Amino acid sequence: MNSVEIRRRVKEVRRHCRDAGVDGLIVMGVENVRYVTGFTGHDSWALVLPRSVVLLTDSRYTEQAQGECVGCRIVQRKGGLSKEADAILAKTKGVSVVGVEDSCSVALLKGIRKALSVKVKPVSSVVEKVRVIKTADEVKLIRRAGRIAFDAMEWALEQLKPGMTELELAALYEYRLSAYEAKVGFETIVCFGANGSRNHHQPSKKKLKKNDTILLDFGANYAGYTSDTTRCFAFGKVTPYFRKVYETVAKSQKAAIEMIRAGVKLCDVDAAARAVIEQSEFPVYGHGTGHGLGMEVHEAPSVSGLDKKGQLQVGQVVTIEPGIYLPSKLGVRLEDDVLVTETGCEIVSRDKRFDIKTDIVPLLK
Amino acid sequence: MNSVEIRRRVKEVRRHCRDAGVDGLIVMGVENVRYVTGFTGHDSWALVLPRSVVLLTDSRYTEQAQGECVGCRIVQRKGGLSKEADAILAKTKGVSVVGVEDSCSVALLKGIRKALSVKVKPVSSVVEKVRVIKTADEVKLIRRAGRIAFDAMEWALEQLKPGMTELELAALYEYRLSAYEAKVGFETIVCFGANGSRNHHQPSKKKLKKNDTILLDFGANYAGYTSDTTRCFAFGKVTPYFRKVYETVAKSQKAAIEMIRAGVKLCDVDAAARAVIEQSEFPVYGHGTGHGLGMEVHEAPSVSGLDKKGQLQVGQVVTIEPGIYLPSKLGVRLEDDVLVTETGCEIVSRDKRFDIKTDIVPLLK
Repeated sequence: MNSVEIRRRVKEVRRHCRDAGVDGLIVMGVENVRYVTGFTGHDSWALVLPRSVVLLTDSRYTEQAQGECVGCRIVQRKGGLSKEADAILAKTKGVSVVGVEDSCSVALLKGIRKALSVKVKPVSSVVEKVRVIKTADEVKLIRRAGRIAFDAMEWALEQLKPGMTELELAALYEYRLSAYEAKVGFETIVCFGANGSRNHHQPSKKKLKKNDTILLDFGANYAGYTSDTTRCFAFGKVTPYFRKVYETVAKSQKAAIEMIRAGVKLCDVDAAARAVIEQSEFPVYGHGTGHGLGMEVHEAPSVSGLDKKGQLQVGQVVTIEPGIYLPSKLGVRLEDDVLVTETGCEIVSRDKRFDIKTDIVPLLK
Repeated sequence: MNSVEIRRRVKEVRRHCRDAGVDGLIVMGVENVRYVTGFTGHDSWALVLPRSVVLLTDSRYTEQAQGECVGCRIVQRKGGLSKEADAILAKTKGVSVVGVEDSCSVALLKGIRKALSVKVKPVSSVVEKVRVIKTADEVKLIRRAGRIAFDAMEWALEQLKPGMTELELAALYEYRLSAYEAKVGFETIVCFGANGSRNHHQPSKKKLKKNDTILLDFGANYAGYTSDTTRCFAFGKVTPYFRKVYETVAKSQKAAIEMIRAGVKLCDVDAAARAVIEQSEFPVYGHGTGHGLGMEVHEAPSVSGLDKKGQLQVGQVVTIEPGIYLPSKLGVRLEDDVLVTETGCEIVSRDKRFDIKTDIVPLLK
């Protein structure tokens, strides 16, 4: 991890701490700890203090932390995290109120309040406010994660044949990720036929039949960054009905992506995607149109109609994923990862092998 | 899910609610919701009320819930969870204080307090107190998860050869689980050679060499229940030094397992395992001796020296996993899952293919 970048992140976190009325922050979320220190282990806290950053870890991780961390002091704890944090804070000048991420559990906050002699204040999304804007290097990793996901899925699809189960296809995809030192970004969704209409379908023992439609919602996590894409196609003959549904979703996705530019309202992007489906004969999807993406598969901002004020900002990466779901018939969702720029956007998850086309070219050789 | 068993669980939860001073409980933890309703989806709450149980879910899950849930009313929400919970509680007699699991986030509790017109009280481990004692059917599932893990690992090990990476072996194991409709119980640990001394090693690109020692910490999750076992062996020649370390760990594990019986103190089991290693030339491990196991890979109780009072109870399942770690040399940990009985215990994770023997028989054919 680049030390200039880490310093920038910490500086930004300190600025948001001041806005939140705290003199320092106990960072606990695994991704947040990694973001401000470079450390990839678990069970550790980062203390962002006025003049330093401390990684509080234990003997299992000290060696690893020494290799990974940049610009922070590593403290190997013997006692509990709260008790050791108290000892550090007691020796730190200028911290009378410390922030604790309000994503932590109620039980943990209670323990921290008990252990700390300084005042404790729960705060919302301090590190997340910095994370929401991606640097060029972060975008590269999201792009790379997407490419790995496509490579792994292509490999898995080469083995597709009638009789293969959804479970088997998902397992083949996930297995192949290891060849790229990647992991799954989230639970892989594989739907054959009518299962595509179930938004949160878990891969089952359902077997592939000739001419089945297939919905694949898959992502990779590479070096801490995640991709999230959905593709649909037919295993054999493309019926005119499937093509019509597919083309409507593709048009809806295109309409939303064409809206994307810094300063545009999130609710307007959402509305653009929905408008296309509203004008069709098909029902409008019940989920949001998209979500932020980065170290976590679901981050800020939410591309939905609920937020009437939020605007896209340069450097955000969001998914755009409208769908049409026809229970007991089929489901089509198309999803890409899109970087917001000053003048428009860049789709970071497109790949010629997995292009979204209104005429579906089956991937199978 | 058996309706008699669900009724028993709910009755027990209500009893613990009374002890905690609440008239009802909002259950949020995914495993806890499943435990009291049978529902396997996400983003849903179970409301345990004086005379009924309500599953609060959304349109994505309604059909699934109707197929899975037993003895509860399914409510499909339109608004947010807290708002809908308030509407249900307002119509429920006899609930003036409702409990909320203190494992929920600080932010969520704040939102709930705002939305609910009844008094809200965070409570600790209410459902967990029931879950800690396993029924015969639950033990069967833990046993089955263990057998699946061994089957899958045997299959993966059949493909082991010099040059294979830790990542590849872990991926083969995880891939194979899908053949049994199982998932990983936790992130698989595969260590070749000196990596075995790193307690939380992540599988790397390190390649297997002839005569390397191997440490495998692996589990399966089947039908919601998890196994957790560790095995060590040599890929080729067993050196007298490895054998000595191995035999010391095996003796330590045996000493702890022989102590297990209802009524025995957890700290005494921990001490028995440590005593064997203290008397050897090797360093004593820094982690606990074991942990409870069930729907989650880490549950109550903790088999450690910290709790001086806690006693084993009939129906608990705990891991016993002492180890010896020699940085830059090797690591050996042996771990099994043990059911506590009135008169002693049963090891639910033994399998003749993966027996723990003081003379190591390599598994490779």
